[in-house]
Amino acid sequence: MAGNSFGRLFRFTTWGESHGPAIGCVVDGVPPGLAVDEADLQRWLDRRRPGQSRFTTQRREPDKVRILSGVFEGRSTGTPVSLMIENVDQRSKDYSEISERFRPGHADYTYQAKYGHRDYRGGGRSSARETAMRVAAGGLARKILEHLLGPSAQVRGALVQMGDRTVDRSRWDWAEVDRNPFFCPDAVSAAEWADYLDGIRKAGSSVGAVIEVVASGIPAGLGDPIYAKLDADLASALMSINAVKGVEIGDGFAAAAMRGEDAHDEMRRANTGVRFLSNHAGGILGGISSGQEIVARFAVKPTSSILIPRRSVTRTGEEVDVMTKGRHDPCVGIRAVPVGEAMMAAVLADHLLIHRGVCGFTAPGSD
Amino acid sequence: MAGNSFGRLFRFTTWGESHGPAIGCVVDGVPPGLAVDEADLQRWLDRRRPGQSRFTTQRREPDKVRILSGVFEGRSTGTPVSLMIENVDQRSKDYSEISERFRPGHADYTYQAKYGHRDYRGGGRSSARETAMRVAAGGLARKILEHLLGPSAQVRGALVQMGDRTVDRSRWDWAEVDRNPFFCPDAVSAAEWADYLDGIRKAGSSVGAVIEVVASGIPAGLGDPIYAKLDADLASALMSINAVKGVEIGDGFAAAAMRGEDAHDEMRRANTGVRFLSNHAGGILGGISSGQEIVARFAVKPTSSILIPRRSVTRTGEEVDVMTKGRHDPCVGIRAVPVGEAMMAAVLADHLLIHRGVCGFTAPGSD
Amino acid sequence: MAGNSFGRLFRFTTWGESHGPAIGCVVDGVPPGLAVDEADLQRWLDRRRPGQSRFTTQRREPDKVRILSGVFEGRSTGTPVSLMIENVDQRSKDYSEISERFRPGHADYTYQAKYGHRDYRGGGRSSARETAMRVAAGGLARKILEHLLGPSAQVRGALVQMGDRTVDRSRWDWAEVDRNPFFCPDAVSAAEWADYLDGIRKAGSSVGAVIEVVASGIPAGLGDPIYAKLDADLASALMSINAVKGVEIGDGFAAAAMRGEDAHDEMRRANTGVRFLSNHAGGILGGISSGQEIVARFAVKPTSSILIPRRSVTRTGEEVDVMTKGRHDPCVGIRAVPVGEAMMAAVLADHLLIHRGVCGFTAPGSD
Amino acid sequence: MAGNSFGRLFRFTTWGESHGPAIGCVVDGVPPGLAVDEADLQRWLDRRRPGQSRFTTQRREPDKVRILSGVFEGRSTGTPVSLMIENVDQRSKDYSEISERFRPGHADYTYQAKYGHRDYRGGGRSSARETAMRVAAGGLARKILEHLLGPSAQVRGALVQMGDRTVDRSRWDWAEVDRNPFFCPDAVSAAEWADYLDGIRKAGSSVGAVIEVVASGIPAGLGDPIYAKLDADLASALMSINAVKGVEIGDGFAAAAMRGEDAHDEMRRANTGVRFLSNHAGGILGGISSGQEIVARFAVKPTSSILIPRRSVTRTGEEVDVMTKGRHDPCVGIRAVPVGEAMMAAVLADHLLIHRGVCGFTAPGSD
Repeated sequence: MAGNSFGRLFRFTTWGESHGPAIGCVVDGVPPGLAVDEADLQRWLDRRRPGQSRFTTQRREPDKVRILSGVFEGRSTGTPVSLMIENVDQRSKDYSEISERFRPGHADYTYQAKYGHRDYRGGGRSSARETAMRVAAGGLARKILEHLLGPSAQVRGALVQMGDRTVDRSRWDWAEVDRNPFFCPDAVSAAEWADYLDGIRKAGSSVGAVIEVVASGIPAGLGDPIYAKLDADLASALMSINAVKGVEIGDGFAAAAMRGEDAHDEMRRANTGVRFLSNHAGGILGGISSGQEIVARFAVKPTSSILIPRRSVTRTGEEVDVMTKGRHDPCVGIRAVPVGEAMMAAVLADHLLIHRGVCGFTAPGSD
Repeated sequence: MAGNSFGRLFRFTTWGESHGPAIGCVVDGVPPGLAVDEADLQRWLDRRRPGQSRFTTQRREPDKVRILSGVFEGRSTGTPVSLMIENVDQRSKDYSEISERFRPGHADYTYQAKYGHRDYRGGGRSSARETAMRVAAGGLARKILEHLLGPSAQVRGALVQMGDRTVDRSRWDWAEVDRNPFFCPDAVSAAEWADYLDGIRKAGSSVGAVIEVVASGIPAGLGDPIYAKLDADLASALMSINAVKGVEIGDGFAAAAMRGEDAHDEMRRANTGVRFLSNHAGGILGGISSGQEIVARFAVKPTSSILIPRRSVTRTGEEVDVMTKGRHDPCVGIRAVPVGEAMMAAVLADHLLIHRGVCGFTAPGSD
Repeated sequence: MAGNSFGRLFRFTTWGESHGPAIGCVVDGVPPGLAVDEADLQRWLDRRRPGQSRFTTQRREPDKVRILSGVFEGRSTGTPVSLMIENVDQRSKDYSEISERFRPGHADYTYQAKYGHRDYRGGGRSSARETAMRVAAGGLARKILEHLLGPSAQVRGALVQMGDRTVDRSRWDWAEVDRNPFFCPDAVSAAEWADYLDGIRKAGSSVGAVIEVVASGIPAGLGDPIYAKLDADLASALMSINAVKGVEIGDGFAAAAMRGEDAHDEMRRANTGVRFLSNHAGGILGGISSGQEIVARFAVKPTSSILIPRRSVTRTGEEVDVMTKGRHDPCVGIRAVPVGEAMMAAVLADHLLIHRGVCGFTAPGSD
Repeated sequence: MAGNSFGRLFRFTTWGESHGPAIGCVVDGVPPGLAVDEADLQRWLDRRRPGQSRFTTQRREPDKVRILSGVFEGRSTGTPVSLMIENVDQRSKDYSEISERFRPGHADYTYQAKYGHRDYRGGGRSSARETAMRVAAGGLARKILEHLLGPSAQVRGALVQMGDRTVDRSRWDWAEVDRNPFFCPDAVSAAEWADYLDGIRKAGSSVGAVIEVVASGIPAGLGDPIYAKLDADLASALMSINAVKGVEIGDGFAAAAMRGEDAHDEMRRANTGVRFLSNHAGGILGGISSGQEIVARFAVKPTSSILIPRRSVTRTGEEVDVMTKGRHDPCVGIRAVPVGEAMMAAVLADHLLIHRGVCGFTAPGSD
């Protein structure tokens, strides 16, 4: 019920504000006996960490995660895993301006309208800093997938569009994703984007992005129709990420323009089970995984904190111009890549446990 | 937990198969004292009813809803409202073919993979017939919105794209939506679409669509960050509708290509509260309603049951060609319009009750 | 969240009022492939049915259950199982008195205070008639236990106290339970109780009872500490039954008076696993089943509808004497026996699925 | 779903093991704008703190609570309140014995059976140490009750039975509760209990207890029939406390022996609303509060860790005698008093928010 928890059997609850003493999450439903240590989670957090290139915020947070419970002698015990990251680089500054002026595109105004009282420092709870804990929880989700499905189960993400520039899918190379600061799977695009984003950044502006997340090695059968369909849960998971304005599965919005004979994936016999001749569906039919790769995309709007003055009002109703100085990501979509991966991993782990619970999971084969 | 319920405080659970004796839903969390009768719900069901034009399935279902509990002497009692619709036109036919062959793009294969045993008649539980109960539950949600927010609160939907044809927004007229068989807000497009869809239908093919749903008169403050954000719940609600492959809020995927100074809604002082100069955000910031119109769109893939043969396999692994005869919608997106409205109404009613519970609702003003 | 659902993975939602057209429930989370038909459920409903002896209400309800969904060709499909019982014997009468006067000990006053508007006919939603649907849902829960644990898993209940008369446990005979109208496991007590309850009934009075429910064949490991402990869920399940005022596990309240060396069950080696030398704990330690019999008891207060005048007030505040004519159980505790069994079966089925989901169930051995 | 969270709108999740670095909880659903600081919570924690008399464990834990999020400038913000207590006095010792031998009456055996791997140090997650976080969360719940209901709303507990000694209710004095180390409301009993418990302690034994918790100033209308009845939720809340074996509301098990004319509370007109002439029901009818005092009792079994040798087995199946040295409470029931209060406060706060959400709360009057 309460809004800060995600998932059903595999369920995590996050807490913390951008400039409070720490952020954290409690992960419930981790099966016992999984080998887990802090390094396993740190690995994923390091991918999301700010300040690693000139293209992300210069806030310097080591984002060092601690495991406070639920793991004993290197293995999970089945009790809640409490994770915490201390906030280190809360630059001391005068917050009087930010406390009074609503930044256009920010949650400032709506938090004020809903709660009447808010921690405005660095965006408080609405800061993207919260997503670090999703990545940590996602690390545990990956452990579950690996444990139950083996090493072939993996969740990978990539930036496929930055501003109005899209990747050339013919050049897609997963290995390239970790070689450039954009998680871009296309080396040529990555090179171009560096110049492009420098221009945006120097202009004091920002730009949006589209992220694609792909899960492979996932068996057919995950998803709980009607309202806990696998794609419905993915949509919720991805839309809950800061600044996301759209989510699609498989062909997504492009499917609207297609005709029936082109939009659906034909099947042939395979050695075990069936083989699909295409993947328009993004690996989900009727809300249930088909055994194909699960493919989701989500759109991130441009960072709202920019150096270009915008019209707004103060808390007391005075009209002002707002310009946000300070450390910001010119394209928040970049750091959303590991967050999207984490959310997909969490959804899959949750559904895998539920499916095992209700239907009895014995690694249903699929091509 | 279980997958056939939607919502938290306002929560409905649907049941039933396409060719079983009936379909139904149980709606819990309806506040007491609301004037409700069957006609209030029938009104919305009639908009979704099949067989009203040559552009929707010729199955003849009166879709007459009965209220079996929770309403006494014309007013809700606060106890569960049970709604039921009997299935009337379950045409007797030979299901041996459909029981054995997986239709490409259908849930046939995945239901078989997940459950091992399924009611294949008419798609069983995966049939869009289930959405009738969403519309009925949505009728109760509308009652709640009206009761707590007054008549200015309304939820309306329209078809904005059919196949590759999009409406001209300069001609948008809400009154037009009820004058054509497509829920199209643009009279010119509606006329063109009739011919277009006739062609599709006669070719034995089908086509996708995009639906836009807009809620007006909704106060600022609804939504429960982080994981019960208003947009996250809308994404889940809309993605759970049959054949939906994408959801977006406000500018949606277009926001990815924008720059910060263009993508965010500036604010000015209004008589009461603030006034936004645009609505790129679709009425939601940080997962909380801003008091603007809430705007969501979703993409529906083409109907998968078509007369054009497609390659597939049987349950026992034989390779076959599948061609689906029978009564089908050439564009299922049309009848998804009232379903999308219902789901948005349900999400809003739920969040309104939750907001009132936690924060104490006193109609927070907004422009 | 909403109050008319019970359970997590195995979850049922009930609806209906005593004098409405029907009562029903929707059972979600039934694993696919279980052989289920209406007779399987009717068997349990017949044990709870009113009017079978002079010791229960003379309302004549056949309580014939219909399965409306979720079962196809005799086996569950994994989709929601909708169950419905039509109300037949809603004796037409003048309800003006009952609508205005609050019966002491009834929910009349509190429903009025909470909802402001209520269906007062026969107690409406607060009637024990609702418990028929629990028994039906419990029938499905038993199917799950049997399917996953084999025929040794069973849930049985008995009346162990009626008014101030308790059974002699040295004469306990499970077979006796079905031979007398009280579900009494002690033939001597049963004979005495017939006279005792006749006296109560003829005096226009009523009397309370204590029910004991025992589950055998349940493996160690069920229960999800801390807040979904097996005993916490049982306490909620049993306390939710109409008129229940107390719940205890194992030695229950008697444990308070014991010393540590007497209260705890010693263990010895068994052929497989361990053997406990006693069962003070009632089969649950730390909220998790130990593999012993699970033993719970609950106390039912006397029926509040009696022929003896009691002081009360009307809805408008006038002071009156209330005397409830009509058909009532002199000891509602009798018919609570099958209800208690059903609730325990539901809790166990739910925990069995959850345990299988999170920990991976492979029939953990226990003595 | 997951087992370490309690509540719906007001919802807390606890984590941590007895001998890990810390324990904590995350409290979601705290309304914004409440004045809260650490001292407000510490006040309640200090009542539960170990080592305050010779009658409780000598473990020396300051139990100093820190608020890590959700409170800004002294007031709640509506975001999750994260609370943490560091474990200080984890006496270094050799755990090899405790790791291998199952203590009779402990959760050792069942945790091992369920999870296969457990943190055995000090009982790990099954330790009563977890209850400190319930008390902290309860402190926030009290804030909500006070905020919405005023200072007359309060939750108080007392020890009414220790071993076979019960209080004399004619001497009940709430003020006495804080004057003796037993939370005993009867000064005479308290004096006797000191000697009694010294005897138990010196014998290396332990003893059970019964706790009564009373809430006053609670309006009629709280509780959500059928499965979220106020008493069902209280039963779950109290039964989830370590070592609890029974829960009763109002007359509880004694009601079973009563006749209808004695068991139900008559009503008369009051200045506002109604006045009840007795409180057999414990303030709850049909699962909904009646406006009377809410009265619950729960039974705690004797501490299982005792110095008297008991028969048991080791993890590998060897038969052994177990005797638990170390720091233990001779009557764990004593420190369960503040825990019971906290759980009742949490249940009431949750139901108050839900009732306000669904029914619209305007302080429904009651006598």
